[in-house]
Amino acid sequence: MPKLALIRHGQSQWNLENRFTGWVDVNLTEEGEKQASKSGELLKASGIQFSQAFTSFQTRAIRTLWLTLTSMGACYLPEKKSWRLNERHYGALTGLDKAETAQKHGDEQVRIWRRSYDIAPPPLSKDDEFHPSHDARYANVPANELPDTESLKTTLERVIPYWNSDIVPALKDGNVLIAAHGNSLRAIVKHLYGLNEDEIMQVEIPTGNPLLIDLDDNLKPISAKYLDEARANPLPSIK
Amino acid sequence: MPKLALIRHGQSQWNLENRFTGWVDVNLTEEGEKQASKSGELLKASGIQFSQAFTSFQTRAIRTLWLTLTSMGACYLPEKKSWRLNERHYGALTGLDKAETAQKHGDEQVRIWRRSYDIAPPPLSKDDEFHPSHDARYANVPANELPDTESLKTTLERVIPYWNSDIVPALKDGNVLIAAHGNSLRAIVKHLYGLNEDEIMQVEIPTGNPLLIDLDDNLKPISAKYLDEARANPLPSIK
Repeated sequence: MPKLALIRHGQSQWNLENRFTGWVDVNLTEEGEKQASKSGELLKASGIQFSQAFTSFQTRAIRTLWLTLTSMGACYLPEKKSWRLNERHYGALTGLDKAETAQKHGDEQVRIWRRSYDIAPPPLSKDDEFHPSHDARYANVPANELPDTESLKTTLERVIPYWNSDIVPALKDGNVLIAAHGNSLRAIVKHLYGLNEDEIMQVEIPTGNPLLIDLDDNLKPISAKYLDEARANPLPSIK
Repeated sequence: MPKLALIRHGQSQWNLENRFTGWVDVNLTEEGEKQASKSGELLKASGIQFSQAFTSFQTRAIRTLWLTLTSMGACYLPEKKSWRLNERHYGALTGLDKAETAQKHGDEQVRIWRRSYDIAPPPLSKDDEFHPSHDARYANVPANELPDTESLKTTLERVIPYWNSDIVPALKDGNVLIAAHGNSLRAIVKHLYGLNEDEIMQVEIPTGNPLLIDLDDNLKPISAKYLDEARANPLPSIK
Protein backbone atom coordinates (compact mmCIF):
# COMPACT_ATOMS: atom_id res chain seq x y z
CA MET A 1 0.00 0.00 0.00
CA PRO A 2 1.66 3.21 -1.19
CA LYS A 3 2.39 6.36 0.74
CA LEU A 4 2.09 9.85 -0.71
CA ALA A 5 3.91 12.88 0.75
CA LEU A 6 2.67 16.34 -0.26
CA ILE A 7 5.03 19.25 0.35
CA ARG A 8 3.97 22.85 -0.11
CA HIS A 9 6.81 25.18 -1.01
CA GLY A 10 7.96 27.64 1.62
CA GLN A 11 8.07 31.42 1.59
CA SER A 12 8.85 33.07 -1.75
CA GLN A 13 9.96 36.62 -2.41
CA TRP A 14 6.45 37.67 -3.42
CA ASN A 15 4.81 35.94 -0.45
CA LEU A 16 7.03 38.23 1.59
CA GLU A 17 6.02 41.27 -0.48
CA ASN A 18 2.31 40.29 -0.30
CA ARG A 19 1.85 40.16 -4.09
CA PHE A 20 -0.31 37.79 -6.16
CA THR A 21 2.19 35.37 -7.68
CA GLY A 22 0.48 32.51 -9.54
CA TRP A 23 2.62 31.59 -12.55
CA VAL A 24 5.36 34.19 -12.06
CA ASP A 25 8.63 32.38 -11.43
CA VAL A 26 9.60 33.90 -8.10
CA ASN A 27 12.39 32.29 -6.06
CA LEU A 28 12.34 31.13 -2.44
CA THR A 29 13.50 33.46 0.31
CA GLU A 30 16.14 32.25 2.76
CA GLU A 31 13.26 31.40 5.10
CA GLY A 32 11.63 29.37 2.31
CA GLU A 33 14.89 27.46 1.78
CA LYS A 34 15.02 26.63 5.49
CA GLN A 35 11.42 25.38 5.39
CA ALA A 36 12.31 23.06 2.50
CA SER A 37 15.33 21.65 4.31
CA LYS A 38 13.14 21.13 7.38
CA SER A 39 10.69 19.10 5.26
CA GLY A 40 13.55 16.83 4.23
CA GLU A 41 14.66 16.34 7.82
CA LEU A 42 11.12 15.37 8.83
CA LEU A 43 10.86 12.90 5.94
CA LYS A 44 14.27 11.43 6.73
CA ALA A 45 13.27 10.95 10.37
CA SER A 46 10.10 9.16 9.20
CA GLY A 47 12.31 6.46 7.60
CA ILE A 48 10.06 6.19 4.54
CA GLN A 49 11.74 5.31 1.24
CA PHE A 50 10.36 6.96 -1.88
CA SER A 51 10.70 5.78 -5.46
CA GLN A 52 9.61 8.85 -7.45
CA ALA A 53 9.37 12.62 -6.95
CA PHE A 54 7.19 15.11 -8.82
CA THR A 55 7.22 18.88 -9.00
CA SER A 56 5.99 21.78 -11.14
CA PHE A 57 7.81 23.95 -13.71
CA GLN A 58 8.22 26.70 -11.10
CA THR A 59 11.54 27.41 -9.39
CA ARG A 60 10.09 27.79 -5.88
CA ALA A 61 8.60 24.28 -5.95
CA ILE A 62 11.53 22.68 -7.79
CA ARG A 63 14.05 24.13 -5.35
CA THR A 64 11.83 23.04 -2.46
CA LEU A 65 12.06 19.50 -3.86
CA TRP A 66 15.84 19.74 -4.32
CA LEU A 67 16.46 21.10 -0.81
CA THR A 68 14.11 18.45 0.62
CA LEU A 69 15.94 15.65 -1.23
CA THR A 70 19.30 17.07 -0.15
CA SER A 71 18.45 17.04 3.55
CA MET A 72 16.85 13.57 3.15
CA GLY A 73 20.07 12.25 1.57
CA ALA A 74 17.99 11.18 -1.45
CA CYS A 75 19.18 13.44 -4.29
CA TYR A 76 19.28 10.40 -6.57
CA LEU A 77 15.47 9.94 -6.62
CA PRO A 78 13.98 10.22 -10.12
CA GLU A 79 12.16 13.51 -10.65
CA LYS A 80 9.44 14.50 -13.06
CA LYS A 81 8.40 18.11 -13.62
CA SER A 82 5.15 19.26 -15.18
CA TRP A 83 3.44 22.62 -15.76
CA ARG A 84 0.25 20.81 -14.69
CA LEU A 85 1.48 20.95 -11.08
CA ASN A 86 2.01 24.74 -11.24
CA GLU A 87 0.27 27.10 -8.84
CA ARG A 88 -3.17 28.41 -9.80
CA HIS A 89 -2.82 31.18 -12.40
CA TYR A 90 -4.03 34.47 -10.87
CA GLY A 91 -5.00 36.14 -14.16
CA ALA A 92 -4.98 39.93 -14.22
CA LEU A 93 -4.17 40.02 -10.49
CA THR A 94 -0.69 38.59 -11.24
CA GLY A 95 2.01 40.80 -9.79
CA LEU A 96 -0.40 43.11 -7.94
CA ASP A 97 -0.02 44.00 -4.29
CA LYS A 98 -2.79 42.27 -2.32
CA ALA A 99 -3.61 45.31 -0.17
CA GLU A 100 -3.79 47.67 -3.17
CA THR A 101 -5.99 45.19 -5.02
CA ALA A 102 -8.38 45.12 -2.06
CA GLN A 103 -8.50 48.93 -2.03
CA LYS A 104 -9.21 49.03 -5.76
CA HIS A 105 -11.74 46.19 -6.12
CA GLY A 106 -13.03 45.94 -2.55
CA ASP A 107 -12.33 43.29 0.07
CA GLU A 108 -15.39 41.28 -0.88
CA GLN A 109 -14.44 40.95 -4.57
CA VAL A 110 -10.88 39.92 -3.65
CA ARG A 111 -12.22 37.40 -1.13
CA ILE A 112 -14.39 35.91 -3.89
CA TRP A 113 -11.44 35.62 -6.28
CA ARG A 114 -9.28 34.05 -3.60
CA ARG A 115 -11.76 31.82 -1.84
CA SER A 116 -14.54 30.82 -4.25
CA TYR A 117 -14.21 27.47 -5.98
CA ASP A 118 -15.07 28.40 -9.52
CA ILE A 119 -14.73 32.17 -9.99
CA ALA A 120 -11.52 33.22 -11.75
CA PRO A 121 -10.10 36.75 -11.84
CA PRO A 122 -10.17 38.55 -15.22
CA PRO A 123 -7.66 37.04 -17.69
CA LEU A 124 -4.12 38.32 -17.99
CA SER A 125 -3.53 40.08 -21.31
CA LYS A 126 -1.44 38.12 -23.82
CA ASP A 127 0.74 41.25 -24.09
CA ASP A 128 1.55 41.23 -20.38
CA GLU A 129 5.20 40.43 -19.59
CA PHE A 130 3.96 37.76 -17.15
CA HIS A 131 1.81 35.90 -19.70
CA PRO A 132 3.17 32.30 -19.96
CA SER A 133 3.33 32.47 -23.77
CA HIS A 134 6.45 34.67 -23.36
CA ASP A 135 8.25 32.07 -21.21
CA ALA A 136 10.52 29.53 -22.96
CA ARG A 137 9.71 26.80 -20.44
CA TYR A 138 6.16 26.55 -21.81
CA ALA A 139 7.22 26.35 -25.46
CA ASN A 140 6.08 22.71 -25.71
CA VAL A 141 2.68 23.29 -24.07
CA PRO A 142 -0.13 23.67 -26.66
CA ALA A 143 -1.17 27.35 -26.70
CA ASN A 144 -4.84 26.49 -26.05
CA GLU A 145 -3.87 24.69 -22.82
CA LEU A 146 -1.84 27.61 -21.38
CA PRO A 147 -4.10 29.44 -18.92
CA ASP A 148 -4.41 33.22 -18.65
CA THR A 149 -6.51 32.94 -15.48
CA GLU A 150 -7.76 30.09 -13.30
CA SER A 151 -10.18 29.28 -10.51
CA LEU A 152 -9.48 26.32 -8.21
CA LYS A 153 -11.94 24.41 -10.41
CA THR A 154 -9.98 24.97 -13.62
CA THR A 155 -6.70 24.36 -11.76
CA LEU A 156 -8.06 20.94 -10.79
CA GLU A 157 -9.09 20.30 -14.40
CA ARG A 158 -5.45 20.49 -15.55
CA VAL A 159 -3.88 18.82 -12.47
CA ILE A 160 -6.00 15.66 -12.43
CA PRO A 161 -5.18 14.45 -15.99
CA TYR A 162 -1.50 14.47 -14.89
CA TRP A 163 -2.37 12.73 -11.63
CA ASN A 164 -3.99 9.96 -13.67
CA SER A 165 -1.38 9.73 -16.44
CA ASP A 166 1.84 10.00 -14.41
CA ILE A 167 1.35 9.94 -10.63
CA VAL A 168 -1.06 7.00 -10.37
CA PRO A 169 1.32 4.68 -12.29
CA ALA A 170 4.20 5.80 -10.02
CA LEU A 171 2.11 4.98 -6.91
CA LYS A 172 1.68 1.45 -8.26
CA ASP A 173 5.49 1.14 -8.10
CA GLY A 174 6.22 2.70 -4.69
CA ASN A 175 5.96 5.75 -2.48
CA VAL A 176 5.67 9.16 -4.11
CA LEU A 177 6.75 12.65 -3.06
CA ILE A 178 5.18 15.77 -4.61
CA ALA A 179 6.61 19.26 -4.01
CA ALA A 180 4.16 21.82 -5.35
CA HIS A 181 1.90 24.75 -4.51
CA GLY A 182 -1.04 25.55 -2.22
CA ASN A 183 -3.67 25.18 -4.95
CA SER A 184 -2.22 22.38 -7.09
CA LEU A 185 -1.92 20.33 -3.90
CA ARG A 186 -5.51 21.28 -2.97
CA ALA A 187 -6.61 19.91 -6.33
CA ILE A 188 -4.98 16.56 -5.52
CA VAL A 189 -6.44 16.47 -2.00
CA LYS A 190 -9.97 17.25 -3.28
CA HIS A 191 -9.69 14.47 -5.86
CA LEU A 192 -8.21 11.89 -3.43
CA TYR A 193 -10.68 12.55 -0.61
CA GLY A 194 -13.71 13.27 -2.77
CA LEU A 195 -14.27 16.59 -0.97
CA ASN A 196 -16.99 18.98 -2.06
CA GLU A 197 -16.38 22.61 -3.03
CA ASP A 198 -16.85 23.95 0.48
CA GLU A 199 -14.78 21.26 2.17
CA ILE A 200 -11.72 21.78 -0.04
CA MET A 201 -11.65 25.52 0.69
CA GLN A 202 -11.10 24.63 4.38
CA VAL A 203 -7.95 22.61 3.58
CA GLU A 204 -4.74 24.59 3.92
CA ILE A 205 -1.48 22.63 3.85
CA PRO A 206 1.12 24.51 5.92
CA THR A 207 4.50 25.26 4.30
CA GLY A 208 7.52 23.15 5.28
CA ASN A 209 5.34 20.45 6.85
CA PRO A 210 4.90 17.32 4.69
CA LEU A 211 1.40 15.85 4.63
CA LEU A 212 1.86 12.07 4.61
CA ILE A 213 -1.11 10.08 3.32
CA ASP A 214 -1.42 6.28 3.52
CA LEU A 215 -3.34 4.96 0.55
CA ASP A 216 -4.99 1.61 -0.04
CA ASP A 217 -4.37 -0.32 -3.23
CA ASN A 218 -7.22 1.56 -4.92
CA LEU A 219 -5.47 4.82 -3.93
CA LYS A 220 -8.15 5.77 -1.40
CA PRO A 221 -6.77 7.54 1.72
CA ILE A 222 -6.71 5.32 4.83
CA SER A 223 -5.03 7.76 7.19
CA ALA A 224 -2.95 10.92 7.08
CA LYS A 225 -0.73 13.04 9.29
CA TYR A 226 1.44 16.10 9.19
CA LEU A 227 5.04 15.22 10.05
CA ASP A 228 5.45 18.34 12.21
CA GLU A 229 2.47 17.77 14.47
CA ALA A 230 3.03 20.97 16.42
CA ARG A 231 2.34 23.03 13.27
CA ALA A 232 -0.42 20.86 11.80
CA ASN A 233 -3.65 22.18 10.28
CA PRO A 234 -6.90 20.17 10.37
CA LEU A 235 -6.69 17.07 8.17
CA PRO A 236 -9.18 16.48 5.33
CA SER A 237 -11.88 14.11 6.56
CA ILE A 238 -12.13 10.61 5.15
CA LYS A 239 -15.57 9.75 3.81
CA MET B 1 23.02 20.55 -35.15
CA PRO B 2 22.99 19.87 -31.41
CA LYS B 3 25.25 21.24 -28.72
CA LEU B 4 26.52 19.21 -25.77
CA ALA B 5 27.75 20.80 -22.53
CA LEU B 6 29.86 18.64 -20.19
CA ILE B 7 30.20 19.86 -16.61
CA ARG B 8 32.57 18.22 -14.15
CA HIS B 9 31.48 18.56 -10.53
CA GLY B 10 33.49 20.87 -8.32
CA GLN B 11 35.43 20.18 -5.15
CA SER B 12 33.99 17.53 -2.83
CA GLN B 13 34.81 16.91 0.81
CA TRP B 14 37.09 13.99 -0.06
CA ASN B 15 38.86 15.87 -2.88
CA LEU B 16 39.74 18.30 -0.13
CA GLU B 17 40.90 15.49 2.16
CA ASN B 18 42.87 13.83 -0.68
CA ARG B 19 41.03 10.50 -0.41
CA PHE B 20 40.04 8.09 -3.20
CA THR B 21 36.31 8.64 -3.60
CA GLY B 22 34.87 6.74 -6.58
CA TRP B 23 31.37 5.59 -5.67
CA VAL B 24 31.24 6.97 -2.12
CA ASP B 25 28.50 9.58 -1.94
CA VAL B 26 30.50 12.54 -0.69
CA ASN B 27 28.94 16.02 -0.82
CA LEU B 28 30.32 19.21 -2.41
CA THR B 29 32.31 21.64 -0.30
CA GLU B 30 31.27 25.31 -0.25
CA GLU B 31 33.97 25.86 -2.90
CA GLY B 32 32.42 23.07 -5.01
CA GLU B 33 29.02 24.75 -4.71
CA LYS B 34 30.50 28.04 -5.93
CA GLN B 35 32.10 26.27 -8.91
CA ALA B 36 28.71 24.80 -9.86
CA SER B 37 26.99 28.18 -9.66
CA LYS B 38 29.80 29.63 -11.80
CA SER B 39 29.15 26.97 -14.45
CA GLY B 40 25.53 28.07 -14.60
CA GLU B 41 26.49 31.72 -14.98
CA LEU B 42 28.81 30.83 -17.87
CA LEU B 43 26.09 28.80 -19.56
CA LYS B 44 23.53 31.55 -19.06
CA ALA B 45 25.90 34.10 -20.59
CA SER B 46 26.36 31.78 -23.61
CA GLY B 47 22.63 32.17 -24.35
CA ILE B 48 22.28 28.49 -25.31
CA GLN B 49 18.92 26.84 -24.60
CA PHE B 50 19.00 23.21 -23.47
CA SER B 51 16.20 20.70 -23.68
CA GLN B 52 17.45 17.87 -21.43
CA ALA B 53 19.88 17.43 -18.52
CA PHE B 54 21.61 14.25 -17.34
CA THR B 55 23.52 13.40 -14.20
CA SER B 56 24.71 10.43 -12.13
CA PHE B 57 23.29 8.86 -8.95
CA GLN B 58 25.91 10.72 -6.89
CA THR B 59 25.07 13.77 -4.77
CA ARG B 60 28.13 15.81 -5.82
CA ALA B 61 27.18 15.62 -9.51
CA ILE B 62 23.42 15.98 -8.94
CA ARG B 63 23.88 19.06 -6.76
CA THR B 64 26.31 20.46 -9.34
CA LEU B 65 23.52 20.11 -11.90
CA TRP B 66 20.96 21.71 -9.57
CA LEU B 67 23.19 24.67 -8.68
CA THR B 68 24.06 25.09 -12.37
CA LEU B 69 20.38 25.09 -13.39
CA THR B 70 19.55 27.49 -10.56
CA SER B 71 22.09 30.09 -11.66
CA MET B 72 21.06 29.55 -15.31
CA GLY B 73 17.42 30.25 -14.40
CA ALA B 74 16.54 26.85 -15.91
CA CYS B 75 15.45 24.72 -12.95
CA TYR B 76 12.52 23.47 -15.04
CA LEU B 77 14.70 21.48 -17.47
CA PRO B 78 13.89 17.76 -17.48
CA GLU B 79 16.55 15.72 -15.67
CA LYS B 80 17.53 12.07 -15.95
CA LYS B 81 19.82 10.37 -13.45
CA SER B 82 21.70 7.12 -14.02
CA TRP B 83 24.27 5.09 -12.08
CA ARG B 84 25.97 4.61 -15.47
CA LEU B 85 27.20 8.23 -15.29
CA ASN B 86 28.80 7.66 -11.85
CA GLU B 87 32.50 8.24 -11.25
CA ARG B 88 34.90 5.36 -11.89
CA HIS B 89 34.76 2.88 -8.98
CA TYR B 90 38.12 2.87 -7.20
CA GLY B 91 37.85 -0.69 -5.82
CA ALA B 92 39.81 -1.43 -2.65
CA LEU B 93 41.36 2.05 -2.74
CA THR B 94 37.94 3.56 -1.91
CA GLY B 95 38.17 5.79 1.13
CA LEU B 96 41.96 5.57 1.44
CA ASP B 97 44.19 8.62 1.79
CA LYS B 98 46.11 9.09 -1.46
CA ALA B 99 49.44 9.83 0.23
CA GLU B 100 49.18 6.82 2.58
CA THR B 101 48.28 4.59 -0.37
CA ALA B 102 51.41 5.75 -2.21
CA GLN B 103 53.54 4.99 0.87
CA LYS B 104 52.04 1.53 1.18
CA HIS B 105 51.95 0.43 -2.48
CA GLY B 106 54.60 2.74 -3.98
CA ASP B 107 54.17 5.77 -6.21
CA GLU B 108 54.53 3.73 -9.38
CA GLN B 109 51.74 1.29 -8.52
CA VAL B 110 49.39 4.14 -7.59
CA ARG B 111 50.29 5.97 -10.80
CA ILE B 112 49.37 2.83 -12.77
CA TRP B 113 46.02 2.49 -11.01
CA ARG B 114 45.24 6.14 -11.58
CA ARG B 115 46.61 6.68 -15.06
CA SER B 116 46.57 3.40 -16.98
CA TYR B 117 43.62 2.78 -19.28
CA ASP B 118 42.75 -0.78 -18.40
CA ILE B 119 44.29 -1.69 -15.03
CA ALA B 120 41.80 -1.62 -12.15
CA PRO B 121 42.72 -1.60 -8.44
CA PRO B 122 41.91 -4.76 -6.45
CA PRO B 123 38.13 -5.17 -5.94
CA LEU B 124 36.35 -3.76 -2.91
CA SER B 125 35.11 -6.52 -0.61
CA LYS B 126 31.34 -7.10 -0.67
CA ASP B 127 31.45 -6.76 3.13
CA ASP B 128 32.94 -3.27 2.95
CA GLU B 129 30.59 -0.52 4.15
CA PHE B 130 31.27 1.35 0.89
CA HIS B 131 30.28 -1.55 -1.40
CA PRO B 132 27.37 -0.34 -3.60
CA SER B 133 25.28 -3.43 -2.75
CA HIS B 134 24.67 -1.84 0.69
CA ASP B 135 23.28 1.38 -0.81
CA ALA B 136 19.49 1.62 -1.39
CA ARG B 137 19.92 3.81 -4.47
CA TYR B 138 21.34 0.82 -6.41
CA ALA B 139 18.55 -1.57 -5.39
CA ASN B 140 17.22 -1.69 -8.97
CA VAL B 141 20.63 -2.29 -10.62
CA PRO B 142 21.23 -5.99 -11.40
CA ALA B 143 23.84 -7.29 -8.92
CA ASN B 144 26.11 -8.54 -11.73
CA GLU B 145 26.29 -5.02 -13.21
CA LEU B 146 27.31 -3.31 -9.95
CA PRO B 147 31.09 -2.83 -10.05
CA ASP B 148 33.46 -3.50 -7.16
CA THR B 149 36.39 -1.96 -9.04
CA GLU B 150 36.87 -0.29 -12.42
CA SER B 151 39.51 0.87 -14.87
CA LEU B 152 38.74 3.70 -17.30
CA LYS B 153 38.10 0.94 -19.86
CA THR B 154 35.40 -0.75 -17.80
CA THR B 155 33.95 2.64 -16.82
CA LEU B 156 33.53 3.35 -20.52
CA GLU B 157 31.89 -0.04 -21.03
CA ARG B 158 29.01 0.92 -18.71
CA VAL B 159 28.78 4.61 -19.73
CA ILE B 160 28.49 4.11 -23.50
CA PRO B 161 25.37 1.87 -23.47
CA TYR B 162 23.60 4.73 -21.63
CA TRP B 163 25.02 7.28 -24.07
CA ASN B 164 23.47 5.26 -26.90
CA SER B 165 20.14 4.43 -25.23
CA ASP B 166 19.32 7.77 -23.57
CA ILE B 167 21.66 10.63 -24.49
CA VAL B 168 21.79 10.11 -28.28
CA PRO B 169 17.96 10.27 -28.59
CA ALA B 170 17.93 13.45 -26.45
CA LEU B 171 20.53 15.04 -28.77
CA LYS B 172 18.21 14.39 -31.70
CA ASP B 173 15.66 16.62 -29.93
CA GLY B 174 17.86 19.50 -28.80
CA ASN B 175 20.86 20.61 -26.77
CA VAL B 176 21.98 18.46 -23.84
CA LEU B 177 23.71 19.23 -20.55
CA ILE B 178 25.56 16.52 -18.58
CA ALA B 179 26.83 17.11 -15.04
CA ALA B 180 29.04 14.21 -14.04
CA HIS B 181 32.54 13.13 -13.00
CA GLY B 182 36.11 13.29 -14.31
CA ASN B 183 36.13 9.73 -15.60
CA SER B 184 32.54 9.25 -16.77
CA LEU B 185 32.98 12.45 -18.83
CA ARG B 186 36.32 11.10 -20.14
CA ALA B 187 34.47 8.00 -21.32
CA ILE B 188 32.05 10.18 -23.31
CA VAL B 189 34.87 12.32 -24.76
CA LYS B 190 36.87 9.24 -25.83
CA HIS B 191 33.80 7.79 -27.55
CA LEU B 192 32.81 11.06 -29.27
CA TYR B 193 36.29 11.95 -30.53
CA GLY B 194 37.48 8.40 -31.25
CA LEU B 195 40.57 8.96 -29.08
CA ASN B 196 43.02 6.15 -28.41
CA GLU B 197 44.03 4.99 -24.93
CA ASP B 198 46.97 7.37 -24.64
CA GLU B 199 45.10 10.38 -26.01
CA ILE B 200 42.21 10.10 -23.56
CA MET B 201 44.56 10.02 -20.56
CA GLN B 202 45.72 13.52 -21.61
CA VAL B 203 42.18 14.94 -21.43
CA GLU B 204 41.34 16.56 -18.10
CA ILE B 205 38.14 18.62 -17.94
CA PRO B 206 38.58 21.35 -15.31
CA THR B 207 35.93 21.69 -12.58
CA GLY B 208 33.38 24.51 -12.84
CA ASN B 209 34.19 25.15 -16.50
CA PRO B 210 31.64 23.73 -18.97
CA LEU B 211 33.07 22.09 -22.09
CA LEU B 212 30.75 23.03 -24.94
CA ILE B 213 30.90 20.77 -27.99
CA ASP B 214 29.20 21.51 -31.31
CA LEU B 215 28.12 18.28 -32.97
CA ASP B 216 27.08 17.55 -36.53
CA ASP B 217 23.90 15.62 -37.28
CA ASN B 218 25.83 12.35 -36.99
CA LEU B 219 26.98 13.47 -33.52
CA LYS B 220 30.59 13.96 -34.58
CA PRO B 221 32.34 16.90 -32.89
CA ILE B 222 32.82 19.92 -35.19
CA SER B 223 34.31 22.31 -32.64
CA ALA B 224 34.60 22.71 -28.89
CA LYS B 225 35.48 25.31 -26.31
CA TYR B 226 35.65 25.82 -22.58
CA LEU B 227 33.32 28.61 -21.49
CA ASP B 228 35.90 30.02 -19.05
CA GLU B 229 38.76 30.41 -21.51
CA ALA B 230 41.18 31.70 -18.87
CA ARG B 231 41.00 28.34 -17.05
CA ALA B 232 40.85 26.07 -20.10
CA ASN B 233 42.79 22.83 -20.52
CA PRO B 234 43.89 21.55 -23.95
CA LEU B 235 40.89 20.42 -26.03
CA PRO B 236 40.66 16.89 -27.43
CA SER B 237 41.80 16.91 -31.04
CA ILE B 238 39.32 16.30 -33.84
CA LYS B 239 40.40 13.54 -36.22
